[in-house]
Amino acid sequence: MKILQTKTAPNPRRVRIFLAEKGIEVPYEELDILKGVKTPEFSQINPFQRVPVLILDDGTPIAETMAICRYFEELQPEPALFGKGPQGRAIVEMWNRRMELGLLASVAQAFRHLHPAAAALEVPQVPAWGEANKPKAQEVLRLMDRELGKRRFIAGEAFTVADITALVAVDFAKPARVERPQDLDNLARWHQEVSARPSAKA
Amino acid sequence: MKILQTKTAPNPRRVRIFLAEKGIEVPYEELDILKGVKTPEFSQINPFQRVPVLILDDGTPIAETMAICRYFEELQPEPALFGKGPQGRAIVEMWNRRMELGLLASVAQAFRHLHPAAAALEVPQVPAWGEANKPKAQEVLRLMDRELGKRRFIAGEAFTVADITALVAVDFAKPARVERPQDLDNLARWHQEVSARPSAKA
Repeated sequence: MKILQTKTAPNPRRVRIFLAEKGIEVPYEELDILKGVKTPEFSQINPFQRVPVLILDDGTPIAETMAICRYFEELQPEPALFGKGPQGRAIVEMWNRRMELGLLASVAQAFRHLHPAAAALEVPQVPAWGEANKPKAQEVLRLMDRELGKRRFIAGEAFTVADITALVAVDFAKPARVERPQDLDNLARWHQEVSARPSAKA
Repeated sequence: MKILQTKTAPNPRRVRIFLAEKGIEVPYEELDILKGVKTPEFSQINPFQRVPVLILDDGTPIAETMAICRYFEELQPEPALFGKGPQGRAIVEMWNRRMELGLLASVAQAFRHLHPAAAALEVPQVPAWGEANKPKAQEVLRLMDRELGKRRFIAGEAFTVADITALVAVDFAKPARVERPQDLDNLARWHQEVSARPSAKA
């Protein structure tokens, strides 16, 4: 078993944090995001040309960050990073989706459409769309701040995959140049707490 | 229990097809996408102002299409629309994500940034971004055609949630004015088969 990744990209970091929280070690193989991923050879592994990809022992490739994380949740259910019980799991899934589709996606669009380093990845870059995503991301940060005034973590009192997605998105806002609105004290408290977990360095 | 929805939107249709495949009946409450969803009152239910939202009997709102579908998969596991076994479920999740993030998202962006009916929903509309999404969606349609030459359904030999997402995306390409490339015979065969299921009319 191994995981193909590009270490600096946000989605591989989600998988690394997830596995560190589980205490699972899988060897990583580093690929250049252009010369290693955007190639005909890699398309045989993942025709969508994205990392991370988990390669199972029989050679089966499992692409998509959440498919990889869910696979390991099934192999080793504790700690339960996708929540507990049908209603608890639905709430974690809801918040993880909100953090993915509402926050990480907006931050990533700002990066991909405005950062010179992403010009070869995102063709064509549409700067107006990059700019339009900044206030979208900031609105979600404000909303998170309100929610984090009511509870310890994104989806409740336990640390879950929704916190992992949110942490990666908040940290990726820096290279994406999405400014964090001032006075979001609850968000700052949460960010400090999740950043202090050993997994955040994975 | 009830589901708040806007019938013409693609995500509520995913839930309706999912529940029809399960044989589960839940009452729907129709909301106008602007006058019912983009309001301070609805924000109390879902601050992200999106439908569908499942309201549980105790009043808890569960937003996000996949959180709703997974909740019902847990309540009634058969037929297994998220796959069987850890590896089987990982493959279904991978393909459902590809259909969501690669196809449905691109079709939806083309609709939201180019269609006059979406001008009040997507502020600002960025027409260049809408146009950039058309070839992205068409590339995924070509890739699906190749894959559907190897197997009956999107994620394998069984109908799954990945087919539901793909069907809704392919059908939404019409109002989004994303043209389907010609000669995609395997895609056409699959589309005819899944469209003939009674659930497709849900």
